Amino acid sequence: MTVTTDAKGGNQAFVLHPGGSFAFEECSIPTLQSGRDIIVRVAATGLCGSDIHYWQHGAIGRYVVEKPIILGHESSGIVVECGDGVKGFAVGDRVALEPGSTCNTCKHCRSGRYNLCKDVRFAATPPYDGTLATYYRVPQECCYKLPSHVSLRDATLIEPLSVAVHSSSLAGKMQEKSVAVFGAGPVGLLCTAVARAFGASKVAVVDVVPSRLAFALEHGATNAYQMSSESPEKNAADLLSTAGVENGFDIVLDATGAEPCVNCGIHALTQGGTFVQVGLGKPNLSIPVGQICDKEISFKGSFRYGPGDFELAIGLLNSRRVNLDGLITHEYSFPEAEDAFKNVAGRSGIKSVIYGPDFNAEVAKSV
Amino acid sequence: MTVTTDAKGGNQAFVLHPGGSFAFEECSIPTLQSGRDIIVRVAATGLCGSDIHYWQHGAIGRYVVEKPIILGHESSGIVVECGDGVKGFAVGDRVALEPGSTCNTCKHCRSGRYNLCKDVRFAATPPYDGTLATYYRVPQECCYKLPSHVSLRDATLIEPLSVAVHSSSLAGKMQEKSVAVFGAGPVGLLCTAVARAFGASKVAVVDVVPSRLAFALEHGATNAYQMSSESPEKNAADLLSTAGVENGFDIVLDATGAEPCVNCGIHALTQGGTFVQVGLGKPNLSIPVGQICDKEISFKGSFRYGPGDFELAIGLLNSRRVNLDGLITHEYSFPEAEDAFKNVAGRSGIKSVIYGPDFNAEVAKSV
Amino acid sequence: MTVTTDAKGGNQAFVLHPGGSFAFEECSIPTLQSGRDIIVRVAATGLCGSDIHYWQHGAIGRYVVEKPIILGHESSGIVVECGDGVKGFAVGDRVALEPGSTCNTCKHCRSGRYNLCKDVRFAATPPYDGTLATYYRVPQECCYKLPSHVSLRDATLIEPLSVAVHSSSLAGKMQEKSVAVFGAGPVGLLCTAVARAFGASKVAVVDVVPSRLAFALEHGATNAYQMSSESPEKNAADLLSTAGVENGFDIVLDATGAEPCVNCGIHALTQGGTFVQVGLGKPNLSIPVGQICDKEISFKGSFRYGPGDFELAIGLLNSRRVNLDGLITHEYSFPEAEDAFKNVAGRSGIKSVIYGPDFNAEVAKSV
Amino acid sequence: MTVTTDAKGGNQAFVLHPGGSFAFEECSIPTLQSGRDIIVRVAATGLCGSDIHYWQHGAIGRYVVEKPIILGHESSGIVVECGDGVKGFAVGDRVALEPGSTCNTCKHCRSGRYNLCKDVRFAATPPYDGTLATYYRVPQECCYKLPSHVSLRDATLIEPLSVAVHSSSLAGKMQEKSVAVFGAGPVGLLCTAVARAFGASKVAVVDVVPSRLAFALEHGATNAYQMSSESPEKNAADLLSTAGVENGFDIVLDATGAEPCVNCGIHALTQGGTFVQVGLGKPNLSIPVGQICDKEISFKGSFRYGPGDFELAIGLLNSRRVNLDGLITHEYSFPEAEDAFKNVAGRSGIKSVIYGPDFNAEVAKSV
Repeated sequence: MTVTTDAKGGNQAFVLHPGGSFAFEECSIPTLQSGRDIIVRVAATGLCGSDIHYWQHGAIGRYVVEKPIILGHESSGIVVECGDGVKGFAVGDRVALEPGSTCNTCKHCRSGRYNLCKDVRFAATPPYDGTLATYYRVPQECCYKLPSHVSLRDATLIEPLSVAVHSSSLAGKMQEKSVAVFGAGPVGLLCTAVARAFGASKVAVVDVVPSRLAFALEHGATNAYQMSSESPEKNAADLLSTAGVENGFDIVLDATGAEPCVNCGIHALTQGGTFVQVGLGKPNLSIPVGQICDKEISFKGSFRYGPGDFELAIGLLNSRRVNLDGLITHEYSFPEAEDAFKNVAGRSGIKSVIYGPDFNAEVAKSV
Repeated sequence: MTVTTDAKGGNQAFVLHPGGSFAFEECSIPTLQSGRDIIVRVAATGLCGSDIHYWQHGAIGRYVVEKPIILGHESSGIVVECGDGVKGFAVGDRVALEPGSTCNTCKHCRSGRYNLCKDVRFAATPPYDGTLATYYRVPQECCYKLPSHVSLRDATLIEPLSVAVHSSSLAGKMQEKSVAVFGAGPVGLLCTAVARAFGASKVAVVDVVPSRLAFALEHGATNAYQMSSESPEKNAADLLSTAGVENGFDIVLDATGAEPCVNCGIHALTQGGTFVQVGLGKPNLSIPVGQICDKEISFKGSFRYGPGDFELAIGLLNSRRVNLDGLITHEYSFPEAEDAFKNVAGRSGIKSVIYGPDFNAEVAKSV
Repeated sequence: MTVTTDAKGGNQAFVLHPGGSFAFEECSIPTLQSGRDIIVRVAATGLCGSDIHYWQHGAIGRYVVEKPIILGHESSGIVVECGDGVKGFAVGDRVALEPGSTCNTCKHCRSGRYNLCKDVRFAATPPYDGTLATYYRVPQECCYKLPSHVSLRDATLIEPLSVAVHSSSLAGKMQEKSVAVFGAGPVGLLCTAVARAFGASKVAVVDVVPSRLAFALEHGATNAYQMSSESPEKNAADLLSTAGVENGFDIVLDATGAEPCVNCGIHALTQGGTFVQVGLGKPNLSIPVGQICDKEISFKGSFRYGPGDFELAIGLLNSRRVNLDGLITHEYSFPEAEDAFKNVAGRSGIKSVIYGPDFNAEVAKSV
Repeated sequence: MTVTTDAKGGNQAFVLHPGGSFAFEECSIPTLQSGRDIIVRVAATGLCGSDIHYWQHGAIGRYVVEKPIILGHESSGIVVECGDGVKGFAVGDRVALEPGSTCNTCKHCRSGRYNLCKDVRFAATPPYDGTLATYYRVPQECCYKLPSHVSLRDATLIEPLSVAVHSSSLAGKMQEKSVAVFGAGPVGLLCTAVARAFGASKVAVVDVVPSRLAFALEHGATNAYQMSSESPEKNAADLLSTAGVENGFDIVLDATGAEPCVNCGIHALTQGGTFVQVGLGKPNLSIPVGQICDKEISFKGSFRYGPGDFELAIGLLNSRRVNLDGLITHEYSFPEAEDAFKNVAGRSGIKSVIYGPDFNAEVAKSV
C-alpha cells in the first residue's frame, strides 16, 4: 500500500454550526503540543448516533453545541508526525484512534477507570472538535496500530467494538453462558460478536426489525427474537422459549435504552444474572426493581471504554475471533459528508463511514 | 442461667388463617427428620414487615397464604435435641436461627449463592411454617451459637443484621468510603452499624421522620438528612451538602424501596459508585437509568443472605463492632402476640419481639 | 446405540491390595443410600498419575493404602438406577462422573469452594473405592449428561478437562492474553486447549520431550519450547524469545510440579502476572519469591475442581471449542487392567483407558 | 503552628557516595518542571531498611549506587511552591509525600496498577535522588494533605503505612477473619494495625524478639508467638494453639521474607487461605508448594503501593482507626543523619526519623 505521508497540506474540516447547518472550512493544522503527541491524517470516520443527535438537536444532555464544532469520533488514519517522546510509532503507521484524551492523574485515571475522568477531552463532544477533518492530534496512548489484515475503513469500527468489549467485560465471565443482546444496530451486533468471542454458548439477539435480526443470525447470533407489543413478562417468556433457555439468561446486554427492552431483559434474566446497559435512551425508565431484588441481579451502567478495551478489540480482530465483514454498509467521500448524516438519520443500513479529505477510498478499503 | 431442657412439652403455635385471623393452636411437636437436624425451643421472635404484610394482605407477590401458617422468622432459642450426625452443638446451647433451609445441591447452593436456591424452605413464607411456636426444627447449618454477652432477646436481631451484612458486602470494600443509607427502620439502622463496622468514614442516614434520624445519629450515623418533597436532584444536592460530601457518595444502601429515595440515591452517587437495593417496594420504579450509564454505576439487588453472613453478623457482635442496644423497643409475651402485630402495623418504635410460649422474658433478656 | 440396562449382574472389581498386588474380585453391588443417589454401570475409566502412584508407592502424602481399594476416578457410564428424589436423569442416560462426593453443608461447601471440603469422599483416594468396577454409586450432583457427539470413551477425559477448567479459571480472564503451559501430558494438553477456548491469543507449551511438543502444536498450542539444562532465567528468556512474547507471559499454568519448570515460569511472567500450580511435585520447592514480590505476581494453588467446572468442561465439548481427538492413545479391556497400569507407568502415549467389565469397547467408542 | 514559607534558601543534602561514605553537600534547589509540580520543604524522613542496605552494600538487586545519591523516601513536608496547574494545594500546606512518580500512560498506569510502572522515578532508588535534603519536588498526585491531628513527624509513617494498606488490601476482605503477621518491625506493626482496622477479629503477631512481641501486644495484636527453632509444621501448630485458631489462619501477612517464617505461615493457613509476601528476603526460598496446592492457597507478592493506598492510609489516621503512637522511637537532627543510619543498622528501636535541614524538631512534633 502506498500512502502519501510527506509534507502536510491544509486541514479541511466538516463543521457543524449552532442551529444545525454544516459547512466545509479550512482550519488550522493541529500541531504537537507535547512530546507524547501524534498527528494523524484521518482515513475514515464512522458515524455514531451521537453525531446525528448533535446535528438534529444541538445538544446531548449537558453537552450543548454553543459554537462551531467538528463532529466524528470513530476514526482511523495514518501517522504523519510524532512528538520526540513517542515510542513505538513511526510516520506511515496505520492506526485506530481512541477519541477520549484523559487527564491521567485524577483518582479515576489512577485507579484504572479512566472512562470516568471528569477532565476528559472527548472528540466531537462540545467543546472538543472531532475527527471529520484532514488531520487530528492524539496523545500516543490513544493511538493503536492495526493488524495488517484490517483495512483503514473497517478500523473505524474499532471504537464501537471497544464499546462492546467494555460492556461485555462488565458482564463477567461469559464462557458457555447464555446471553441476550437487545438491539441489532452496530453496537448490538458488535456485542453479539464479542459475546461469542468471549465464549457464550448462546447469544440471542432481540430487535423489532426482521431484516436486522436476519443480519444478526448471519453474524454470530445463535437465536433471534422479534419483540412484540405484548407485556415485558410475555416477551421475556417468548424470548426464552425461542432461544431454548430454561431458567433465564445468565447475561443481558441492552444496546437500545428502550423501556420495553430493558423490562423484557430484566424479566428474562436468571437468578443472580447480570444486566449491562450499553445504550442510552430517556433519562428515566420504569423498570422492575422488584425483579432485580428477588433475583439478586446486578444492573450495571456501561460508559464508553477503559483500560485495555481498545487493545482487546484489536486483539479480537487480530486473532480473527471477531469478524467485521458486512457491517459497513455505506461509504461516502468527504464532500458527501452531509449525505452520510442524512442517511444515518434515516436509519438505513448498519454503519456509514466518511473518508478523510485527503484519502482515497480504494486505499482505505484495501489491506 | 438455668434453662429447662428436659422432656419436651406440647408445641403451642400462633397461627394465621387465610382471611387474616389469628389463633393459638396446639400443633404436633417437630421431630428430627435427618441426623443433621436440631430441635430448638424458641426463645424470642422479632417481627418483620413481611409478617405484617401476610397478615394484612394475605400474600407477598407469588407467595399466598392459602392454608393456616405460623409466621415469624427472626428467632433465637435453646437447643433441646440433636440428630446423631450433629457436630458442635449440645442440648442447652443458646442459638440464633437462620430461617431458610436450602437444598444444598442445586447450582446456586453449590456455587456459593444459596440465597438463590429455588427449593429453599423459608420460615413464614407460604407454605412453610415459621417460628412463632414452642419448638422449631432446623438443619445444623442453620443454627449459630451466640456470643456469651448477647441475650436471647437481642439475638432475634441477628437475622436482620445478616440482611445488612449481606447487602453491605455486595457494596464492596467500604474502608474510608462515604455511604448513604436510606431508611432509618431496623434494617437501615443495622446497615448503618455495619457500614461503620466495615470502615466507612461517613455514613449519612436519610429518612422522613425526624425522631428516626435522631435515633440514627445516636447509633453510628455520622450525618442525618430529612428527605423533602423537592426533586431527587435537589434532595441529592442537599444531602451531599448536609453530609459534606463533595463528589457524590461512594455507596448507597436503600432500605426503603421508595421511588423518591432510590432516585435521590442514584443522583447522589459518585462516578463508578455502587447502589444496593436492600428493601423492596413496588414491583416497578421509575429510576434515572441515564445517570446509571453516565456514571457507570452498579445497581445491585440484595436478597436475604448467603454464605458466611450469619457468621459475620455474629462475629460483629462478638467483637463488639456492632452494638444492638436500644433497637428492640417493644417486647410481648406469647399470649400478647396479636398486640405485637398491631403495634408493628402502627409503625411504633424500632423493633418488636414476641417471647416463646415456654420462655421467661427475664431469662431471654439476661446474658 | 443399544445398551443393556436391565437387571444388574454381579459387580466385578479390580482391587489393589496393600503391598501393591492387584486382584479381580467380585464385590457387593452398590445400592441407593439416599433418594438422590444414582447407580451407574461404568463404561470406561482413564488412568491418572495418582492411580499409578498408589500402586507403586502405596500412599500419596497422608493417604495410605491400608486395606484393599478399587482405583480409578476418571469415568463415564450408563445410568442403571435412580433414587426416587433424582430429577433430570433416567435409566440409560450416558453420563460423566465427578469422583468427589462432598458434605454440602460445611463452610467451604456452602461458600462455593466445595473442593476444599474436608469430608469429601473422593473415588480412589483411601479409604474410598474408585470406579474400576462394574458399578459405581454417585449422588446426582456428581452426574453429568454427555453431549450426543461425545463418546463414552472420550468422556473419561471430562474429569481431567475439569481440572484444566478449574485451574485456567483461577488465572482470571484470558482473552487475548499470552499463556505458557508447562507440561505436555494429558493435563497440560487440556490446559492448552482450555486456554485457547478461553481466548488466549498465544499459548506456548513447554516440555522436555520433543514428541509431546509436536503433539501439543497439533492440539492448539501456538508455540512450543523444549526446556534445556540452562538456568531458569536463561530458559525463561529463550522461551519468551521462541514465543515472541516481549514483556513476559500474562499467565503461566504449571502442570509439572517440577522445580526447574516452576522457576522458569515465574521468571517468564510479566509484571502483575498470575501463576497457577496445577500439578503436584515434591512437597517443597525452591522458588524465586523475590520475583513474585518485585513483579507482584499471584501464585495460586489449584486443587481438583469446584462449582461449575464439570458443566463448563462439558459445555466446551458441546460447543466444540475443545476437541479431545487423539488424546486417548491406549485402550484396554477390563481383564487387561494391569497392563494398562504398566503402560502408564512406562509413560507411553498420552492417555490410557480401561473399559468397564460389562462394557463393549465398540459401544464405548461410538457416539 | 508558625512555619517559614518565604523565599527558598539553599538546598542542603545528605549524599551517599559510591563506596559507602556520606557527605553533606549544597545541591541545586529543585524547580518546577511542569505545571503540576509542587516543591516541598522536607520536614522529616523516616529511615527504611532499603536506605541502610544501599549504604552498606551499594546495591539492591539490579539497582546499584553508581554515582552520588541522596537517600530517604518516607517523608513529610511543607508546600513552598506550586505549579500553575496545581489544584487543591497552597503554600504552607502540611503534606505527606508519595516517593514514586510514575509515567501515568503505560499499560500498568492506565489499568490501575501504577506500582508496576517500569518508568517510575522512585526516590532513593538509583539513579533517582531521595528526600534527605532541604527541598524535594513531586507531581501533585504524589502529595497528600495531612489530617490536622497528625504531626509532620508521625506523617513520615504514612509511606510504610501505605505499604501495609496495599498488602492488606491484596489479602481480600478481612472482617472477622483471623490473620497472622510475621515480623514485628515497623511494617509488621503497621500491618497489624491495618488488619485490625480492616476488621480482623484476631491478629497474631510472630517474631523472634520478645520485646517486639510485647510492643505488638500493646499496639493492636490480639496474640503473640515467639518463633522457635522447631520445624515449620511444629511452629505452625504451636502458633495456632497459642492464638486459639482451630482450622488455620484465613490470612498470613509476612513482613520478614525469612524462609522459616514463610514456611510456618503457609503451614498455618487454612484451606483456601491467602498469603501476602510483604517483605523481601533472599531471591529464592524453599517453600511448601505442596501445601499451596492441597489447600488451594493464593500466595501473593506485594510491591509498594498503588491507587488509593496513600488516601486510605491517611483516612485510617483521620478516622483514628490506626494509631501511630510510640512507633517512632528515635529522632535525629539533619546534622546527625549518619548517626541515624548507624542506629537503624544496629536494629535499635522501631523507627528512626531525621528532621529536614531547615526544620525545627519541636515544630515537626507538634500538631
